[in-house]
Amino acid sequence: MAVYTDVDDIELKAFVANHGLGDLVSFKGIAEGVENTNYFVVTTTGRYILTLYEQRVDRADLPFFLGLLDHLAANGIACPTPIKSASGEQVTELAGRAAAIVSFLEGFCIHSPTATHCRDLGQTLARLHHAGKSYTLTRPNTLGLAGWRPLFAKFKNDADAITPGFSQLVADELNWLDENWPNDLETGIIHADLFPDNVFFLNDKLSGLIDFYFACNDAFALDVAICLNAWCFDNSDQFIKDHGAALLAGYQSERPLSSNECASLPTLCRGAATRFLLTRAYDWLNTKQDALVRPHDPHHFLKRLQFHQQVTTPDSYGLKTNA
Amino acid sequence: MAVYTDVDDIELKAFVANHGLGDLVSFKGIAEGVENTNYFVVTTTGRYILTLYEQRVDRADLPFFLGLLDHLAANGIACPTPIKSASGEQVTELAGRAAAIVSFLEGFCIHSPTATHCRDLGQTLARLHHAGKSYTLTRPNTLGLAGWRPLFAKFKNDADAITPGFSQLVADELNWLDENWPNDLETGIIHADLFPDNVFFLNDKLSGLIDFYFACNDAFALDVAICLNAWCFDNSDQFIKDHGAALLAGYQSERPLSSNECASLPTLCRGAATRFLLTRAYDWLNTKQDALVRPHDPHHFLKRLQFHQQVTTPDSYGLKTNA
Repeated sequence: MAVYTDVDDIELKAFVANHGLGDLVSFKGIAEGVENTNYFVVTTTGRYILTLYEQRVDRADLPFFLGLLDHLAANGIACPTPIKSASGEQVTELAGRAAAIVSFLEGFCIHSPTATHCRDLGQTLARLHHAGKSYTLTRPNTLGLAGWRPLFAKFKNDADAITPGFSQLVADELNWLDENWPNDLETGIIHADLFPDNVFFLNDKLSGLIDFYFACNDAFALDVAICLNAWCFDNSDQFIKDHGAALLAGYQSERPLSSNECASLPTLCRGAATRFLLTRAYDWLNTKQDALVRPHDPHHFLKRLQFHQQVTTPDSYGLKTNA
Repeated sequence: MAVYTDVDDIELKAFVANHGLGDLVSFKGIAEGVENTNYFVVTTTGRYILTLYEQRVDRADLPFFLGLLDHLAANGIACPTPIKSASGEQVTELAGRAAAIVSFLEGFCIHSPTATHCRDLGQTLARLHHAGKSYTLTRPNTLGLAGWRPLFAKFKNDADAITPGFSQLVADELNWLDENWPNDLETGIIHADLFPDNVFFLNDKLSGLIDFYFACNDAFALDVAICLNAWCFDNSDQFIKDHGAALLAGYQSERPLSSNECASLPTLCRGAATRFLLTRAYDWLNTKQDALVRPHDPHHFLKRLQFHQQVTTPDSYGLKTNA
């Protein structure tokens, strides 16, 4: 939620010219994105988003992320398209940072999604999974099953400050997930962070996906489970079955889930809830009280995890199998 | 440098429609402005800036500020123009805040102004002073001479933490200013904060002025002195006489300074430096170390004040009188 790096107008003019984008007309720092510095840039050729990569993004991952945007855009997914420099590079330097400039997407995120939005999202997610199949670079999921224990180890001694019993609950859940995690599901490129604030709508139709900085290779159905967690709970963390049914129907209209994926859905939903519970708990415990970036309250994902723990069959999510 | 208030898409759609601006296309929080929350808004009719007024701006002052923008724009000054609501109001409510939406200005601020930029700025400042003469609302300068002692009293006991002897230096300066301040200069609407980051250029021509939230009634020549402080020192706080000469020549091309104003310039420059020294010293001492908004280092204005203290005639600023 902050600009971390200032850009000099003279440097930016040269950067814009070097990317064949004409003359600079306006630029403003955007108060979005905790990881990087983002500017909204207007030139005589159009509107763009400039990103300066701060330390939290591994520079070695940038070719994967930017190549993915390029690949997805070329394969019909509405997402920011990287603009190459005169020498053909997607990542150059600006203000002492690795920098990339991408096309501007119209639309805005929806604070209170409806079932219609969820259906649209599910359909686009399946299209994203199809489009990613021909992408040749790969990136492991650093926040997948293998990443959860090391992350939990960083704060488990302080974890009961969130709520009494928190540490034991998570330890038990990690054991259960290790024993029950499905390892034979179809994998490919997943977004892995497709919350409503990363999805734009225009006139109530999905207009684009943003923020691919958690994208990686993992089970497609895990991405579905992440979206069920992110889109289908109300403000009291009650599951909205109509939203789940719409999201799953939208997804299956483009990519029917296998019987194995269907059966694994409750387990994947528990894993997805655990992943966000862990990162939010860590940030909650490690963000200074007066920081302007407010961490998300981890209690929401605690309640969502507890919901999934009660689920025994995927019908609870509104799944209608094609059988 | 932060968005303080989140806006809901449904509320914003209604707000945009109520201001006759068509359908919402995009909106992004802008990481500019410490006092208020600003959003860049695109609709089917154009680009706008939405401001939600946070507690640091006195709501009773909003009719003065927004009326002034309207008046100046109607009188040929390039500045944001308030868009009225269906019922004719410049200030309405959004997200529990007083809110206004204004036209978007093309251009961007210059990090390292040249003499040409300074001349352009001086000329526009004089035009602003002329254009403000027919504005009927008034607002006292709360950060003018009478405001400096109360502000200093808030931190003078801690002031030597900035540099040894700081407190005595400021106390002496305030006494000197009280004795020497000119009270017979022409007054009118002044911007009072026309630093380079509040002035946009496009193709190296001045394209607009922003951020009028310190505008008030005071001596026109004080505004000139503020600009000499803000535009005519290099990064080592050395005065650049060519910049001063260009700024003053630009100003005088539209509004020649009276002999009284010319003679008062060194005193007004000391006062202007003291005003920014005081607010920056206060912010420096009262901003938490890990806040994302970094306060300006007050030492720059200490050095500028010390420069002005050595000045005996306005020629030192590059002033060429018309006599």
